[in-house]
Amino acid sequence: MSTQFDQVSVVKKANVYFDGKCVSHTVTLADGTRKSVGVILPSTLNFGTAAPETMELLEGHCRVRLKGQDHWIEYRGGQSFDAPGNSSFDIETIDTLHYVCHFG
Amino acid sequence: MSTQFDQVSVVKKANVYFDGKCVSHTVTLADGTRKSVGVILPSTLNFGTAAPETMELLEGHCRVRLKGQDHWIEYRGGQSFDAPGNSSFDIETIDTLHYVCHFG
Repeated sequence: MSTQFDQVSVVKKANVYFDGKCVSHTVTLADGTRKSVGVILPSTLNFGTAAPETMELLEGHCRVRLKGQDHWIEYRGGQSFDAPGNSSFDIETIDTLHYVCHFG
Repeated sequence: MSTQFDQVSVVKKANVYFDGKCVSHTVTLADGTRKSVGVILPSTLNFGTAAPETMELLEGHCRVRLKGQDHWIEYRGGQSFDAPGNSSFDIETIDTLHYVCHFG
């Protein structure tokens, strides 16, 4: 996996969620695909999804519970998880997560 | 001022400083120039500089005291300040700062 995106556009201003527990920057690839690169600090948060998302974890450790599920699943850097659109998921970040979020 | 950088490379993994009070992503322009885009959450921090830096503030409000100075200077989004290399500065962030850091 490449450690960087090349030939992309990056929005200068960050997206700051949950008082800064999650900070991301929006990236647009040459083909128009939008992604975000970000960090989630240790915390337990609930994220809403508009489009379906694949969270690609670069580094860190978390537990995730998708809406409507009663079990938590553990993920670490090198793994990914999918969340459906128009939904939400709980995420408990144990070690700071570095991620790429893929939409759609 | 453009709200985004175009045709750049972005390192996927963020730079996380001071327990997440400062989160940035490294961007490399087509000509090889390196910059960072980031956020500083409300806090008082001391940043060391290697290269000289120009901090371009996109949004927010802070006070800055360069090393060796005894006075603080206030800056807001739309303004910039310069810090010399091999030095440091104190920064009190009053409202979350969104910035572009230009090196060298």
